[in-house]
Amino acid sequence: MQALEKLRDRIIQRVNINLRELGFDVTPYMHELTPIKQMVKFYAFYGITPHHPLNFQFTHSNLAGSYFLGRCRVTNSLLYKSDIRGDELKKEGSVFQFQQFEIPINRDEHIDIEDSFLIKTLVHNYSHDPETLEKFFIKDTISMHYANIHGSPSDGCFLGPFSTVDLTTMHDCVVGTFSYIQAGEISHIKVDPGTVWIRSSDKFNFLYRYEKNHLDNYINFTAGNRPKGPLFDFVEDRKKDFEQIFAMVNIDPPRSVPGSASLDRYAVIKPHTNISENVLVAQRAYLQNSWLGKGANAQENCYIINSRLEGFDITAHGGKIIEADLGKKVFVGFNSFLRGRPDARLTVGKESIIMPHTIIDISDPLTIPPNHIVWGLVRNKHDLETSSMPLSDFSAIEKKFSLGNMIFEGSGASFVSALQHRIEHILEANGAFFNGAENKGHAQKNQSISFNTIQPYPMGKLKGLYPSIIIQP
Amino acid sequence: MQALEKLRDRIIQRVNINLRELGFDVTPYMHELTPIKQMVKFYAFYGITPHHPLNFQFTHSNLAGSYFLGRCRVTNSLLYKSDIRGDELKKEGSVFQFQQFEIPINRDEHIDIEDSFLIKTLVHNYSHDPETLEKFFIKDTISMHYANIHGSPSDGCFLGPFSTVDLTTMHDCVVGTFSYIQAGEISHIKVDPGTVWIRSSDKFNFLYRYEKNHLDNYINFTAGNRPKGPLFDFVEDRKKDFEQIFAMVNIDPPRSVPGSASLDRYAVIKPHTNISENVLVAQRAYLQNSWLGKGANAQENCYIINSRLEGFDITAHGGKIIEADLGKKVFVGFNSFLRGRPDARLTVGKESIIMPHTIIDISDPLTIPPNHIVWGLVRNKHDLETSSMPLSDFSAIEKKFSLGNMIFEGSGASFVSALQHRIEHILEANGAFFNGAENKGHAQKNQSISFNTIQPYPMGKLKGLYPSIIIQP
Repeated sequence: MQALEKLRDRIIQRVNINLRELGFDVTPYMHELTPIKQMVKFYAFYGITPHHPLNFQFTHSNLAGSYFLGRCRVTNSLLYKSDIRGDELKKEGSVFQFQQFEIPINRDEHIDIEDSFLIKTLVHNYSHDPETLEKFFIKDTISMHYANIHGSPSDGCFLGPFSTVDLTTMHDCVVGTFSYIQAGEISHIKVDPGTVWIRSSDKFNFLYRYEKNHLDNYINFTAGNRPKGPLFDFVEDRKKDFEQIFAMVNIDPPRSVPGSASLDRYAVIKPHTNISENVLVAQRAYLQNSWLGKGANAQENCYIINSRLEGFDITAHGGKIIEADLGKKVFVGFNSFLRGRPDARLTVGKESIIMPHTIIDISDPLTIPPNHIVWGLVRNKHDLETSSMPLSDFSAIEKKFSLGNMIFEGSGASFVSALQHRIEHILEANGAFFNGAENKGHAQKNQSISFNTIQPYPMGKLKGLYPSIIIQP
Repeated sequence: MQALEKLRDRIIQRVNINLRELGFDVTPYMHELTPIKQMVKFYAFYGITPHHPLNFQFTHSNLAGSYFLGRCRVTNSLLYKSDIRGDELKKEGSVFQFQQFEIPINRDEHIDIEDSFLIKTLVHNYSHDPETLEKFFIKDTISMHYANIHGSPSDGCFLGPFSTVDLTTMHDCVVGTFSYIQAGEISHIKVDPGTVWIRSSDKFNFLYRYEKNHLDNYINFTAGNRPKGPLFDFVEDRKKDFEQIFAMVNIDPPRSVPGSASLDRYAVIKPHTNISENVLVAQRAYLQNSWLGKGANAQENCYIINSRLEGFDITAHGGKIIEADLGKKVFVGFNSFLRGRPDARLTVGKESIIMPHTIIDISDPLTIPPNHIVWGLVRNKHDLETSSMPLSDFSAIEKKFSLGNMIFEGSGASFVSALQHRIEHILEANGAFFNGAENKGHAQKNQSISFNTIQPYPMGKLKGLYPSIIIQP
């Protein structure tokens, strides 16, 4: 265990050095939290397919419970139940368009994680940073439970639980609990908990901040403690269901999955769940008594319970949908928490956009009309008035606008069109539009993945660390 | 599948080229036998411990269901449910004594398997060949079901089902079904089925041959067919029990295993089995309703059913013991088949030696007295008279002796003492003499093994082949 503890302490020190200007000390947050004993218990695994660039290098890190797909290098890091997905990595010879630049990719992109500590974090390729297109780095970074590092290279950062950094390069930043950042590039800043911030430098700026006392009712993380609140409990309460599927080497898929759909063998599928054509269910997704219509996708760490999704719906990484009926092409963003009740269902009309990190938690039935955008905290009809708008109204914003705790600057049309463009891209990449021959996406390509398991040294000084493991085509 | 079939055909051709002088064509034997479809189904696995030299390199081979421990390289070979154990490999800096030579080992020994096809074969280190002490090679070799390649480098050979080659270097040889060879070095010979041959060039020569019609009643392998006979059926009938333990990632050991004993998680342990101190139970061992006394060991592919072993008993690789009572320090050699009946138990007195590839199959109770040596086919008291002797009588042989189908030349004393010396070595290496502090062996060192699973490409041209996998300390 010695080497494992030394490694943890070294990582903490390095992150603190990076964050010295912000005066942020990660040490107390790591207390009582670091599951160092658990890190010896769980096997890690990686997926092999003919479709994904194969190249893994793991060097004396701990990888407990983590999953890897695509080209990836992990050196002296601690990854605990993190999913590292590299199935959209750029290929050598392709061209990356950035503003007026056409940048040729001169070697296959890889994910490079060094001296970092990621707890139950989802990492998804690929680097949108024109300065580092071939290397998606996560360096000297600590990331807490259920955070998402999504297309966001990171150096010297601390991410709180349930935070998301999306298409943003970060240097020496602290991202608070349940904050969502999509800002291109950020450096030396500390983002308060419950911030939802989307910025396109020349086009728009969207900012919402949860009131602290409201956020604390859902998720709350203080030094020396584990995260607390119903959002964390909700996930913890369902851990047991995952234990079963991790205990088996192979699991037979339910018969009812169509040939064009993909159901990860590390997903939990409880009874009475219907999976239609072109559906993608990613690892660690949790489906129970729900209907997923054609082309819907259920991404990593999402939960869909007692709900009906009509089709082409997106449930992004960490999204939770309980007792709800969603029309076609509804987007539910990262880590959103949509909780209806058996006697108070939530209805969302078609093509509506639930922004990342939205909390909808109702005691009376609530309907969100079609083609609306929703953000922030919605507990009832009254909240909805200051937390949603028709998309067409939002598109009409030209310069400045505010509603409730949300402030917007710039072009509403370009904001809405960027969102809609991305939704189309996600559906396309996930294979929602597969017609039996063309438009293959993850739902079709991720069907036949071989999973290989790896485990650390079981005892001795190196206990908990993995040997050097190199997997190449 | 294409690449996999090409590889199989290439291996068959290479073996045939090596065996051209013997006029032996392996092709018809491979028909209907090559489980090419099965080779995509099963995961392979390797063990990691702090005690064993870690260094695996697998390159575009198929490894279905195989197990690896220790330093090993497999290049473009097909291994189907083979166990490759390298936990006795020589270490750099040690010295190998051979006759008057003291040979320093100049690098860690490794197992190197190339262009070979091993089906359910057990490979055990280490090379006893003074010409190749650092490299244990298996090249251009095809080996059939339940064969043992034991300390025997091999180049251009074909081994029939249930054959064993022990401490023997082979070049361009054919070893018949159920034959056992321990002969130092052999080259360009064809060994008939049912031969048991033990030779020490300057000291002794032991030769037994099963009559063909007798052997056929137990095991029989002809071109174009799978092996047939009760010996094969016995093993096949118990395959289902293994499927369950291979389906789980981790299995909790039964509580009753003492701290000084080692129970492999890939062994089958059926109810009412007692495991005492210092017992070693290897992978793919099968224990049912049996009592294993202190220091006994149950090696790979052995079956111990409704039997009692008093302690310090050795059940070598592939040994089968059914309805039998064994006194202390009874040795049961490779692939021996000891079958008593519920109403006709077999009793073996202490310190008796059941030679490798002995078949004892009785319908009336039978007792083998202590300190006896037994070989060949024993179905009743009458057979026993020409298939056994007191060890002291055997030791008295000075030049030449024959009994039944057995011929012996040389010094009986040196033959018996070589056997006894080896039995002590096996007990010592397996940890039978561990006293709580000293004399650790496999039983103590193999306790905490982490198992990592690996799988082939699930589809495409490379279907069934494994990527390049390198595991280093």
